[in-house]
Amino acid sequence: MYGAGSVRIENRPDPRIQQPTDAVVRTVLSCVCGSDLWPYKSMPATDTGRPMGHEFLGVVEEVGSDLSGINAGDLVVAPFTYCDNTCDYCARGLHISCRQGGRYGIDGVDGGQGEAVRVPHADGTLVKLPVGADSSLLTLSDVMGTGHHGAVTAGVDHGDSVLVIGDGAVGLCAVLAARRLGAQQIILMGRHTDRTDLGRDFGATDVVAERGEEGVARVRDLTGGRGVEKVIEAVGTRQTLETALASVIDGGIISRLGVPQYEEGPLGPSTIMRNITLTGSRRPARAYIEELMPDVLDGTIAPGRVFDRSFSLDETPDAYQTMTDRHVLKALITF
Amino acid sequence: MYGAGSVRIENRPDPRIQQPTDAVVRTVLSCVCGSDLWPYKSMPATDTGRPMGHEFLGVVEEVGSDLSGINAGDLVVAPFTYCDNTCDYCARGLHISCRQGGRYGIDGVDGGQGEAVRVPHADGTLVKLPVGADSSLLTLSDVMGTGHHGAVTAGVDHGDSVLVIGDGAVGLCAVLAARRLGAQQIILMGRHTDRTDLGRDFGATDVVAERGEEGVARVRDLTGGRGVEKVIEAVGTRQTLETALASVIDGGIISRLGVPQYEEGPLGPSTIMRNITLTGSRRPARAYIEELMPDVLDGTIAPGRVFDRSFSLDETPDAYQTMTDRHVLKALITF
Repeated sequence: MYGAGSVRIENRPDPRIQQPTDAVVRTVLSCVCGSDLWPYKSMPATDTGRPMGHEFLGVVEEVGSDLSGINAGDLVVAPFTYCDNTCDYCARGLHISCRQGGRYGIDGVDGGQGEAVRVPHADGTLVKLPVGADSSLLTLSDVMGTGHHGAVTAGVDHGDSVLVIGDGAVGLCAVLAARRLGAQQIILMGRHTDRTDLGRDFGATDVVAERGEEGVARVRDLTGGRGVEKVIEAVGTRQTLETALASVIDGGIISRLGVPQYEEGPLGPSTIMRNITLTGSRRPARAYIEELMPDVLDGTIAPGRVFDRSFSLDETPDAYQTMTDRHVLKALITF
Repeated sequence: MYGAGSVRIENRPDPRIQQPTDAVVRTVLSCVCGSDLWPYKSMPATDTGRPMGHEFLGVVEEVGSDLSGINAGDLVVAPFTYCDNTCDYCARGLHISCRQGGRYGIDGVDGGQGEAVRVPHADGTLVKLPVGADSSLLTLSDVMGTGHHGAVTAGVDHGDSVLVIGDGAVGLCAVLAARRLGAQQIILMGRHTDRTDLGRDFGATDVVAERGEEGVARVRDLTGGRGVEKVIEAVGTRQTLETALASVIDGGIISRLGVPQYEEGPLGPSTIMRNITLTGSRRPARAYIEELMPDVLDGTIAPGRVFDRSFSLDETPDAYQTMTDRHVLKALITF
């Protein structure tokens, strides 16, 4: 990416092992993340460009001398940041804060939207897959782990009423995760009927197309006036945060997944009187891969349905634009 | 209270049963809450005045016809709001949001800083005490329950490092509660040595007198550079919230007990990247009375030590002023 609106396909040097803990992975499936669209809309123009992509699945081509768990030929999925999986943060499931971790596409590490990637700390980062490549397994790289993280941090439990704000791929995966954790009522707030229809397939019991005060009123109607116990906020605007606060019962939990488009938010006396908990975050996808994989493999969940169009690597610039134009929910990139 | 700085002792009509669920309690012990000092500093002058006080312990004098659990002659403690203890909010321990609940001193209900109080929903509200009146039992009305709520909502667990910000009565009770729940390291941030000395008695392992960036640096030093897992913020200023955010590790929890003196707070992308949870609140003291009482009765905890001076009812105006001047930590009112 060379700046807003400018994604180019270029030849780069083949990745090779630099550290004994590296692996080189040949990409089989990749995709475009909603968060990739932020720089696509706003990145200042540069001469050097930046490798893109942090969700990929592939075959290990070469391994560093220190690796023991990963071998050439393994099919693996990569979480959206690399990590050693041994530090104190990783030990508590917070791989995104790993003391040796980092992000793809910067600091000399390749992006996942390319033919091959050098993965640092490959033993800690990569997870072996037992079957052939599958787009549902690719979602464990980020989007399904993120939706699941929202449901986990919101404390979704059997019998809960849950509001999911946002019908993007993360919101839809949050619906799937809330259903998987036993939520009784799942209200999906979104206005794109093709997306909310998929949300119903994923387990949404109700869809609210209204926003703001009207949306809150609808949520109240649907919960007998009470409001919901848990909210998963997968948009990130100030308005959606306020919708979350107005829709949740006293003592409820709001998990924020959408990257905030605000710096300040309501934290005054009224929030404290109501015992609201604000949690959630960027998603330590690595922590959840082993937990979610069996349900993907046996078909209990099919998060790969969020991919509604495939693009070849050469078509990646189109993938960015059609997602930005909301003609595509989530773009799969095949190699 | 007739306005900022104006507390008067007056004769009011004797409370009497109005609803069959009422009880009338003759006060034995009461006290002044830190939250009473807010109107004492800022309340606009009025002609009618407002009964004050929401923490009291006393003897039941008369009961309504619907009461079954409370009898005349019982010694009881009252949590700082009344509640039915049966609605859906009470069932989840959120008595402060009780659907039939309310506050003392408004809507025709007496204040606790007086000789007698009509208590609505007395079966749900009052808890019988098995022994003679004791100032440590009085703290179950609010301040000890509040400190405990901070430790519970922060998820304090065995081995944790906990930062308690504020050496007022709530902060000190939070230290006691964090210790009781097994925290290994408890850093108390406060500048009044008589208070922080009591904090050490209550279980603080370290005291930090510095504030702001210097305070954060000291906390980092005391935790090997890592920061603390949990913060209990018992002041409520924007600065103390920022100190909490800068002192907690990624993935940590901040429980806010101090009534916020701000409407907006930092909720931008950096907080979400760090997986910080903001929780805590006004304190459903009622929920904790039965849990904490045995430890008070057997002397495991002695939260009554926060009362450092007794006043007669007639001296209550002095109690407000000396607490405001910080010459008294928490004023006990005896009858």
